[in-house]
Amino acid sequence: MRNLSAIAAAAIAASVLGMAAGAHAAEISRVATPGPGIASAAYVPAGADTFYVSGITPSASSAAGVTPAVYGDTKTQTMSVLTKIQDILKGKGMDMTDVVMMRVLLVGDPSMGGKMDFAGMNAAYGTFFGTPAQPNKPARITSQVVALANPAYLVEIEVQAAKMPK
Amino acid sequence: MRNLSAIAAAAIAASVLGMAAGAHAAEISRVATPGPGIASAAYVPAGADTFYVSGITPSASSAAGVTPAVYGDTKTQTMSVLTKIQDILKGKGMDMTDVVMMRVLLVGDPSMGGKMDFAGMNAAYGTFFGTPAQPNKPARITSQVVALANPAYLVEIEVQAAKMPK
Amino acid sequence: MRNLSAIAAAAIAASVLGMAAGAHAAEISRVATPGPGIASAAYVPAGADTFYVSGITPSASSAAGVTPAVYGDTKTQTMSVLTKIQDILKGKGMDMTDVVMMRVLLVGDPSMGGKMDFAGMNAAYGTFFGTPAQPNKPARITSQVVALANPAYLVEIEVQAAKMPK
Repeated sequence: MRNLSAIAAAAIAASVLGMAAGAHAAEISRVATPGPGIASAAYVPAGADTFYVSGITPSASSAAGVTPAVYGDTKTQTMSVLTKIQDILKGKGMDMTDVVMMRVLLVGDPSMGGKMDFAGMNAAYGTFFGTPAQPNKPARITSQVVALANPAYLVEIEVQAAKMPK
Repeated sequence: MRNLSAIAAAAIAASVLGMAAGAHAAEISRVATPGPGIASAAYVPAGADTFYVSGITPSASSAAGVTPAVYGDTKTQTMSVLTKIQDILKGKGMDMTDVVMMRVLLVGDPSMGGKMDFAGMNAAYGTFFGTPAQPNKPARITSQVVALANPAYLVEIEVQAAKMPK
Repeated sequence: MRNLSAIAAAAIAASVLGMAAGAHAAEISRVATPGPGIASAAYVPAGADTFYVSGITPSASSAAGVTPAVYGDTKTQTMSVLTKIQDILKGKGMDMTDVVMMRVLLVGDPSMGGKMDFAGMNAAYGTFFGTPAQPNKPARITSQVVALANPAYLVEIEVQAAKMPK
């Protein structure tokens, strides 16, 4: 009987343990889109950590002044922005694979008649997401705005990442 | 004494169980606005699952080509977008009632002097949110941007939904 | 032996208790930026409550009609918006210190050649965030859009706040 009470207690505790751990058993997942490129949605179960990254702007490719020429075209600027986002994620033990939501703001490219260079942004994006090495794709929204903080910026991106704690 | 230890263990375990379950006892709620239409805020307690839906764009109402005429006006496009969002939510066991945050991007309607058709968007929105059948309203932000991915698009909407796991 | 089983049960239960409580031991934190003003990212561990506040628009400074003059310049409007956000946060037991993400939409100021008044927005922002009394700064993204719901609005802001439950 003594053993029984200990076993019963252990069984109850184990069941509680299972329940508490249960929230961590779920996994972050993506809903695929018919086409390539992005997820139509990303599911983050209870128990995940969330990381809100600020809108990140590109770095100048030289010290020659704050001009669009120095910051490069939309693809170049997007490579700069996404590299900086990756660094911020790595600083918190995360990586591009953990990005669940991305908001992309583009400014019209003067060399394209003032239209946003969606293809240029996407070309840079495609080197970080949906690759053989990093197949995860986030949910995403992209729009052309009037202006960003600096007239040389053609792109600004913010992301949310989520990860189940170990 | 044997029983006492079993009872004590059960009592401790039950208390732990209650604590673990406690995070699930809270409910998702909305802060009402003085006026109708949207919530001023939505509260999502710890323990909720979160679903990030991509920016969703309208479907063409016919196969006659990618022109604004084929995609319809802002109200028609918003109906298309919200129906698609509802389908994505249902695919994950959620529905419009679970939407906590909505971001609406509108493009100026050429037939309205280039101004966004806020009222048209709202008319479609009002058939999904704040109705007798579905009284929940999300927090929301709406703005007019320069352009979306396709020149025929007058609206793109992204949402976050949240639901307490069963 | 009887005591042993009770002690064992208590030990197991305590360990479970620790695990369940563990998720609440983590803290919301910010990643500092090299410069002042905003955080480059905000980290919200599992177990936090999340509060989504709608896009908030300014209140008129008088009842003289819906004109830009009545709503004031960008700084004045931002003070109005942030004060309203603070009120909404306080209504839920939160405050500016709990804001983890902020999205700022500005409209071009006619008195500034149609450019957004970034400095004016920032001046108002700086009275609420990163002060000695309230040192926390959120992650943030700011852009100039074409228009907001009302032609007199020069600014609209939405935030997410997060807080560990007590």
